Amino acid sequence: MQIEIITIGNELLIGQVIDTNSAWMGQQLNDAGFDVHRITSIQDTREAITSALTEAMSRVDVVLLTGGIGPTKDDITKETLASIFNSRLIYSQEAHDNMTRLLKGRVKGINKQNESQAYVPECCELINNPVGTAPVMWFDEEGKVIVSMPGVPGEMKTAMRNEIIPRLKKKYKTGHILHQTIQIFNIPEAVLAEKLEGWEDTIPEYMSLAYLPSPGKIRLRLTAKTDNEERAHEDFNLLKDSLHAIVGQNVFAEKDVPANKLIGDKLKELNRTISVAESCTGGNIGHLLTSVPGSSVYFKGGIVAYDNAIKAQVLNVDNEALEQFGAVSKQVVEQMARGVKELMKTDYAIATSGIAGPDGGTDEKPVGAVWIAIAGDFGVMSHCYNFGKIRSRNIQRASDAGLIMLLQKINNKLH
Amino acid sequence: MQIEIITIGNELLIGQVIDTNSAWMGQQLNDAGFDVHRITSIQDTREAITSALTEAMSRVDVVLLTGGIGPTKDDITKETLASIFNSRLIYSQEAHDNMTRLLKGRVKGINKQNESQAYVPECCELINNPVGTAPVMWFDEEGKVIVSMPGVPGEMKTAMRNEIIPRLKKKYKTGHILHQTIQIFNIPEAVLAEKLEGWEDTIPEYMSLAYLPSPGKIRLRLTAKTDNEERAHEDFNLLKDSLHAIVGQNVFAEKDVPANKLIGDKLKELNRTISVAESCTGGNIGHLLTSVPGSSVYFKGGIVAYDNAIKAQVLNVDNEALEQFGAVSKQVVEQMARGVKELMKTDYAIATSGIAGPDGGTDEKPVGAVWIAIAGDFGVMSHCYNFGKIRSRNIQRASDAGLIMLLQKINNKLH
Repeated sequence: MQIEIITIGNELLIGQVIDTNSAWMGQQLNDAGFDVHRITSIQDTREAITSALTEAMSRVDVVLLTGGIGPTKDDITKETLASIFNSRLIYSQEAHDNMTRLLKGRVKGINKQNESQAYVPECCELINNPVGTAPVMWFDEEGKVIVSMPGVPGEMKTAMRNEIIPRLKKKYKTGHILHQTIQIFNIPEAVLAEKLEGWEDTIPEYMSLAYLPSPGKIRLRLTAKTDNEERAHEDFNLLKDSLHAIVGQNVFAEKDVPANKLIGDKLKELNRTISVAESCTGGNIGHLLTSVPGSSVYFKGGIVAYDNAIKAQVLNVDNEALEQFGAVSKQVVEQMARGVKELMKTDYAIATSGIAGPDGGTDEKPVGAVWIAIAGDFGVMSHCYNFGKIRSRNIQRASDAGLIMLLQKINNKLH
Repeated sequence: MQIEIITIGNELLIGQVIDTNSAWMGQQLNDAGFDVHRITSIQDTREAITSALTEAMSRVDVVLLTGGIGPTKDDITKETLASIFNSRLIYSQEAHDNMTRLLKGRVKGINKQNESQAYVPECCELINNPVGTAPVMWFDEEGKVIVSMPGVPGEMKTAMRNEIIPRLKKKYKTGHILHQTIQIFNIPEAVLAEKLEGWEDTIPEYMSLAYLPSPGKIRLRLTAKTDNEERAHEDFNLLKDSLHAIVGQNVFAEKDVPANKLIGDKLKELNRTISVAESCTGGNIGHLLTSVPGSSVYFKGGIVAYDNAIKAQVLNVDNEALEQFGAVSKQVVEQMARGVKELMKTDYAIATSGIAGPDGGTDEKPVGAVWIAIAGDFGVMSHCYNFGKIRSRNIQRASDAGLIMLLQKINNKLH
């Protein structure tokens, strides 16, 4: 059984609003064992809705629509659905009562615009919307299921969780779906793909593999469609083991969790603390670490030493090293890591110093050259990366690399 | 002339990746005067690509595709495009040279997988991709333009900005479009809309207004479709003046430039320097400031004082203040601002201390309560905001508010 999602609204097409609804729906449906065939964003015109919906119905069994049914007058989804299904809008006491309940106590109460929301196509079944005044409408037409939901994420999610997914599961028998994500860093996608050619051939028929690259790292996702969960987990483990034999050094996680959360969980587990000394990353590593709720337990603080004077004065980097080797050097970045670790009395520290670009590069130290050091009970170690020419990507990759380097070292995967 | 966007990748359909590319493209194309008719996300199969592309070509003049052209096996977009256009894949020296240039100095260099990227449909024109090894392909077929781009945002954006939008503008005469954006902060959208009801009625017929809200601020964008540029600018100025009379205190910019860039330009213009002392923002203000190329001219550095010991030890906040008023207090945040300004010998400083959440709130200091201080030749001033319950949004709003507070003060709009 295949599903298509249609999201309605001009704001999506001019980029005023990013369509996060369909991503969330895709995730929920996929986890429930349904296959999302296509996602379409369209303008809220009668023509756009009619053509998109009829096309989708010709391809798949279930079409889920979001948006275009609020109280404002430009919302014509309901009328369009009624005419597509040769139905008419009728007044629904049920919809009206739901509205009365929700708007009780509001200063304004039910106004004319809300009133119009109580009119729904005669041929649809109303689905309870406990959190909003817009109707959720379920249509059984021509052997297909069409569901129209509000675009407000909270209302859509409630309807999906409480009603739509359970109903779809009851109506259509779904295959069981399992995922296994393995995260790999510091290896280009092309190189990884070449190394894994043989490994990929060992993936059983009922599994599929996806490369999900992002700057500096690649998530490998295995998807198994099977009712034999036990066998799937055995096969996942076999594949993980053989993958480790090939690129074990580059594997930093066997679940789909970002590095800042992974290192945080590890530090909490070990009851250790961390501080950071950032030059080219400018505070982003601190930002990533503190984006995780509860990070104050292990993150003490950081020094953003953008100016060399701060490196010397606050982090005790010797001016000789700065003059002799320059700020972007093994010597300086290691002194930065030691310096902040001592200053903030933490178990671990990460330090970065590099040429973020677009300017400031030399032949010897081109834009993208970044020295990263980590410090801990193991002493200090550092590595020089080259992250290429785009400033934002350099900052992002250097931040990730610092977190992953320390994570790998703590997990004894870095020597 | 109408455009459709097709984004290719299973990861979009199962919600593992949110499709931010097409939102960004929609915004850029809209600003350039083009009309995005539909956005479609599909699986990377030959069938899905073929049907989606041929359908789109039957509806519109230009189809922009992203994704599905990396070096890995599962990327079959190129082959599919070649067969749709009855063409064949040929070896492109140009694509190969671009790769050689990009991979120069990398340990691995070009491998078999990369090699395959040098093969492109014979009928396409290659467009320069300065930041990636994947080809950007421009097709002129059946009077339509089809462009295939990598899904990596940095590569897609570079190609769109440098080549594709300029080429489309040259090929298709777009109506003359002028934009005037006014940025407003610290006022809820509903309240602003109510205040501006009368003002909106004064907007001339040939102009339209869009509210572009993001956490803590709202961009008002006036769009004029006209060939009379002079008159449009006159009307823009009249509207700006009357807007200032209503919400002048809340206006922090009359162009569509983010706060971190605005403050950077101002500091460069004044030849002044800045430092930051961050608690609840955890390094994000430093990150925002250093995201701007050339920021090392005015940004000296920062202290992320997450732990109170760091506030006292590095920023010289007195322990009495910490004990008596707590870390989230006027007294402490103002001492943090003074402390970092003196430590880093800068002209200005921004400091933050708040409850980012989700935990740690009290009746007196609920989650979302953030004290922000700015320091400069004017002395120190501070303000307490409440940014609500969502951690990521608190951090984002507090960072913005700090930058905007200082910007407003420097522009004598804060008293």
